[in-house]
Parts: sequence; C-alpha cells; structure tokens
Amino acid sequence: MNIQKLLADRTRKMSVNTIREILKVVSQPGMVSLAGGIPAPESFPIDILKILTQKVLEKYGPSALQYDPTEGFSPLREALPGYLAAKRGIQAKPKDILIASGSQGVLDAAGKIFISRNDPIAVEAPTYLGALQAFDPYEPRYVTLVSDAYGLVPESLEEVLAREPIKFIYLVPTFQNPTGRTIPLERRRHIADIIQIHDALLIEDDPYGDLRYSGQALPVIKTLAPEHVIYVSTLSKVFAPGLRIGYYLAPKKIRDWLVMVKQGVDLHTSTFNQALAAEYIQGGYLEQHLPHIIELYKPRKDAMLGALQRYFPEGFTWSKPEGGMFVWVEGPENYDMQELYHRCVQQNVAFVPGKFFYSDPEVGNHTMRLNFTMADEATIDGAVKKLAEIIAAPHV
Amino acid sequence: MNIQKLLADRTRKMSVNTIREILKVVSQPGMVSLAGGIPAPESFPIDILKILTQKVLEKYGPSALQYDPTEGFSPLREALPGYLAAKRGIQAKPKDILIASGSQGVLDAAGKIFISRNDPIAVEAPTYLGALQAFDPYEPRYVTLVSDAYGLVPESLEEVLAREPIKFIYLVPTFQNPTGRTIPLERRRHIADIIQIHDALLIEDDPYGDLRYSGQALPVIKTLAPEHVIYVSTLSKVFAPGLRIGYYLAPKKIRDWLVMVKQGVDLHTSTFNQALAAEYIQGGYLEQHLPHIIELYKPRKDAMLGALQRYFPEGFTWSKPEGGMFVWVEGPENYDMQELYHRCVQQNVAFVPGKFFYSDPEVGNHTMRLNFTMADEATIDGAVKKLAEIIAAPHV
Repeated sequence: MNIQKLLADRTRKMSVNTIREILKVVSQPGMVSLAGGIPAPESFPIDILKILTQKVLEKYGPSALQYDPTEGFSPLREALPGYLAAKRGIQAKPKDILIASGSQGVLDAAGKIFISRNDPIAVEAPTYLGALQAFDPYEPRYVTLVSDAYGLVPESLEEVLAREPIKFIYLVPTFQNPTGRTIPLERRRHIADIIQIHDALLIEDDPYGDLRYSGQALPVIKTLAPEHVIYVSTLSKVFAPGLRIGYYLAPKKIRDWLVMVKQGVDLHTSTFNQALAAEYIQGGYLEQHLPHIIELYKPRKDAMLGALQRYFPEGFTWSKPEGGMFVWVEGPENYDMQELYHRCVQQNVAFVPGKFFYSDPEVGNHTMRLNFTMADEATIDGAVKKLAEIIAAPHV
Repeated sequence: MNIQKLLADRTRKMSVNTIREILKVVSQPGMVSLAGGIPAPESFPIDILKILTQKVLEKYGPSALQYDPTEGFSPLREALPGYLAAKRGIQAKPKDILIASGSQGVLDAAGKIFISRNDPIAVEAPTYLGALQAFDPYEPRYVTLVSDAYGLVPESLEEVLAREPIKFIYLVPTFQNPTGRTIPLERRRHIADIIQIHDALLIEDDPYGDLRYSGQALPVIKTLAPEHVIYVSTLSKVFAPGLRIGYYLAPKKIRDWLVMVKQGVDLHTSTFNQALAAEYIQGGYLEQHLPHIIELYKPRKDAMLGALQRYFPEGFTWSKPEGGMFVWVEGPENYDMQELYHRCVQQNVAFVPGKFFYSDPEVGNHTMRLNFTMADEATIDGAVKKLAEIIAAPHV
C-alpha cells in the first residue's frame, strides 16, 4: 500500500538513528568496542534479583501483576524519598515522586506537553542523543548553549533566555553523556539563579549521579531552584536497565500534565518491575550493591585515562571525569573523526564519532566518545593503544 | 512559575480523564464495582511466575537485565509465531513481530507517525477510550463510523473512505471494549475488501481474542488483508497486565517508523518481562493456564447475562458477548445514565456511563458498560439486581 500519503508531517522529517546503526556494526563478533553506552553486565545484582522476585510475589501477590496507577507503584514511591535524601540531598514526599518507563519516558512526556512546532528549547552542544530523539517528533527548534570543560557556561544560558521564549532547558549536569563533564558548584548556583530570574524551566537529567568514583558529590540543581526544575533520574545504572524504571520530581503544576500524557503512552510502568525496585531500595540492597558497581568501574575509568595519557598523540585532549561512563576526546581542529571511525572499525576497534551528539550536523566532527564501563582494564588499555596506532598510521 | 506560557498548543486542549476519576471513586471501600476494565487478580499465574522468574535469571542471566533492541527481545519474538498460528491463524516470522509496552504503546506510536493536526481518522462509536487518549495529543479529527449489534457496519466504512482521506481506521473487532460486540465473518471479509480497494490502513486491536467462552473463533482481519492491517495484541489478559507486554504486526513499510518513534519514547520494553513472557509461551505455560482463565470468567459472564435477564426492566437491551470482559447496556432513548450513575454510587454499586466511550460528547448518555471479570457470580447477581432496583426506584 501507499504509506507515504499516510505519514504525518513530523514523520517525513525523521531519519534513521545513525548511532543505532553504528551500534549494530560494532556488536559484530571480534570487535573491541568503546562505542557502547551501557552498564557492564557483571554489574547487575543477579543473585539479589533471585531473592527479590520471590519476595515480591510473596509480599504483593497479584497486586504486583495488576494494572496500577499511572503515577507509579506506591511502595516504590514510598521507598525513594529516603534514598533521594541520603544520596542527592533532595527532600521529597512519596506523592512528589512520579515513576516513568526509564528517564526516556519523562523526556517524551515533556516534549509532548511543552513543544509546539518550532518552539525553541535550549540544549548543550554536545548533548544526550536520546533526549534529541525524544524531543524531535514534536519538532522543536534547538537553541544551542555554549559549554566548556566545566559544562554549561551560565552566561550563555542567560543570553539565550534574555533573547528567546525558551520552553525548557535540557541539561545533564553530572558526568554528562557524551562528555563526562560535571558542572561545578558555583556554576550550578549561577544556573539556579538565572532560571529563577527568567522564570524558566530546566529539565535536569541525572542518570549517573551515583556513579562517582572520586571527589565530592555536588548538590543537584533541583535543590537550588526547586520550583523551576524537573529532576529526572533512573535505576538503570544502579539496578538494571532492562527493568526500565525511571523517576522524576516536577513542579506541582506540571505533574498532572506529565501523568496524563504518560497514561496515553503506556498506561503505567511495569508494576512488577516497580515492586522489584521498591524492595531493592527498601530492603537495603541498593546500598549494599552500589559499592560493587563503583569498585568495578573506577579502575576501568583510571585505565582509560591512563592509556589516553600514555598513547594518544599531541593535539588530542580529553575530559577527566570523576564518575559516570564516558570520556570525551577532542582531536585537533578539523580532524576528521568519521574517517578515523571507518579505519578503526576495519581493524576491529570502535568508538562513537562525537558529531552525532550535536543537534547541529555541521559541528563536532573532531570529537569522539569513549565508554569505559563495558570492557576490563586490560582490554581498555589495548583498545586505546590500538586507536592511537591507527591515528598515527599514515592513511591513503 | 508561570506554566501556562510554556504549554504546547496541544496541551491546552487536554482535559482530565473522566473515567480515571470515576475509577478512583469506585475503588473506595464497600463499593461493589462493575466499572472496572481489568482482569481478575485470581486469574494471574503467580505460581508459574515463581518458576519463570528463576528460570529467566538462570537461562538468560544478565541479558535479561540489559538494554535490548527496540524491536523486542529475540526469544519472545521467536516464541510468538507458534502461538499466533495456533490461536489466531496468523502466519508470521519472528522478524515480523514487534514488541511494545502494552498495546497502548503501539497506539501512541501510530498516532505519532500518522496524525498531523486535524487529520481525519475513523473510529467506532463507542470505541476504546485508551485509544482516544493515545491519539488525542496528536490532535486528529475523529470521523465516526456506524456500528450496530454486530459491530462496524461495513457500508459506513465504505462511505467514509470514499469521502475522506482517512489516515487510519481503528477497530476492536472481537469482544470490543466497551460493547462486548464481535464483528461476524461476513462483515470481516467485507471490511477487508473495502480497505484493500481504498488502499486504507486498519489498526486491528485484539486484546480479548483468547478470552472466548463459547462459539467459534473468527479469523482476524489481519489474515484477510495482511498488507493493510496493523494487528495489535497484548499478553495483559492471558498473562499479567502489570508486566506491560504488547506486540504487533505491521506492514513492512511501516515497521521502521513505529520502531523509531518507540525508541524515542522508552528505548525498549522491559527485557526482563519480555523474557518472562517468552518462557511463559515457549514453556507451554500459556497453553496450560489459559483454560483456567476461561473457566473463571465464563460463569461470571453467564451470571451477568442471567441477572440482566432476570432483573432489568423493559426498555433496556444489552449485548450477549461470547467472550471478553464487558456487557453493554442501552437504556430507553434519552435515558440519563449519568444521573443513574450518581444515584448508584451513593448506594455503593458502580458502572461506567457509556457516554465516555464516544469521541462525540453529545451522544451515548443512555448507555452503560458493565464488567464481569472482577467479581464472582453471586456478587455480580447482587450488583445487577441492585442496579435494577435503583433504576426502578422513584427519584427526585
């Protein structure tokens, strides 16, 4: 049948996700990949899950398998405040916390309730690709904020808010994907002031906050400007991403809209998985397991930074994250990282060219994202060394 | 902060879901509710789930907890063809089957890829409310098809397709929610012919197909016009709704769009729950458990139809479904079912006024939806009797 005539205007503008295609290539056998963006399978608490599944079926019985309110499973909403207070300094009541099908679900819902076609929204450059994918179907106009090695430059935000009726700002302030950068305290305060002065709305996406391997935790911007921030986080990095449990705290007047559109999208997030998450937190398992995840990743991060230092040529610089999953490498100006990518894949080592993380397709081709959670230290060392060799090799 | 200025145009038009509010009222203690639309908790295979959870963690290990392709977990896509061939007469390969977070996820994705503002889409009157909720944010113009006791009247579809550039038709052909009606074979054939002649797209939503208590299964329209139908179904009624596992088969040219927008919405459906579903089907548990669900619901359906026959006054008529979860009652012309609803709730018995299932707010106030899956036979008999007494009672 003729499908073209049936497509919505927004659909005609969509294109296949390039990073998705890259990840298919790099999952081929024999490939050493620093391209992924996912937790190590050995970080998953499988033995704990064997206990939790039985516990949930005993404790909640059919309620864990039944339809449930869109807002979230009550025991999970009751378990989260203690964790958020201890780990993020967020004071919240269960009714303040809403559950989503991964953070992605919140980003889609926010796009749906805020973005009319051509509405300006402000994003970092580079930014999290999944956020662009969530927002794209609502056809926003992306306004790019300036970032440096310390993340978003507050003056850039101020200038944009003074100039444009921005619907919302989207930021990953801590261990950002793709750069690994963290916005320091002084800038967080400055950003909180700016959004309050301009009565602007910030979506603060914080999937990696708990994955800190050194240094001091910083306050989330939500605590500095509570009425102007939708704080979004997930259990994907500290429990298991395959369970698809995200959560968020939104200013009161926004909550009902977000819940209403989520209801139209999936009715609610898996009750069973929410029950597992509730028991994981409430039973003290998260507190017990998180140090193991950190112990697993810290030496991998150190191995990657050490290898970059040892092997990478002059003219290349990279971020030095204290946590998260990624290191961001910048080559010399005008360096062609896509060309390098193709040479590397032929030699079975992969990364993600950084240009895919920019809303502007014309910039960022001298950058790359490296992931350090999916391979052990020796593999990381070998892969970074090989990358350096391919960079140094003469090519036709 | 000022939220109004931030809302998208589509959001300003949204209103609180009335049925959601009704369900809150009727879940109060002491209420005998025929208002629900959900499976009986005693229909859930809890003991089987205790086995499956351990099996999945042993068999798949970390893969059951990891990020997974948007298309769906391979073992589930491999398990479904045998089931679909046996139960629905659908011949499909694993790659033809895509997984969603409940059927709802498919409806949202279809809305997103097909509907531009004011595009006409064709729906039955009454129709499934959740579908309207999925489509509403994309701001379609609903074109109403004519239905009678045998469901959609094919001539009405023909007339609409000849007149309007309909983006898609949405139908629940079997044991429809809210009416319980099933479109007979001859009409299915006619509908299949019409959509092929007009090169139109049908979304065939089939959540209740397996819940047949008497009579012969009918072919799904997908098998009669395979290239013109997106066939959508779910494991919510035969496994557990809290796991949020839906699946669908779409014409080849549409698949990539549906997968792409789903990726932006939730990345993928819970891997763990998909693994549970795969083992539930592959291990023969579905086949073993489904007869228990049917044995549970059949006498409840019979109890409701018997009680309506015994107690309801002249001038009221109702559907006589051979399966599903609902009976549809029509009162005399101009009967005020909302007024009746308020009197009934005061006396602790509840139903859903039928008017909420119409896209046109001006029609359907003489109708009601009764659910028979959530109460036992004696409770159903008592509730229907009480409804009849309240109908008969003089009121001020």
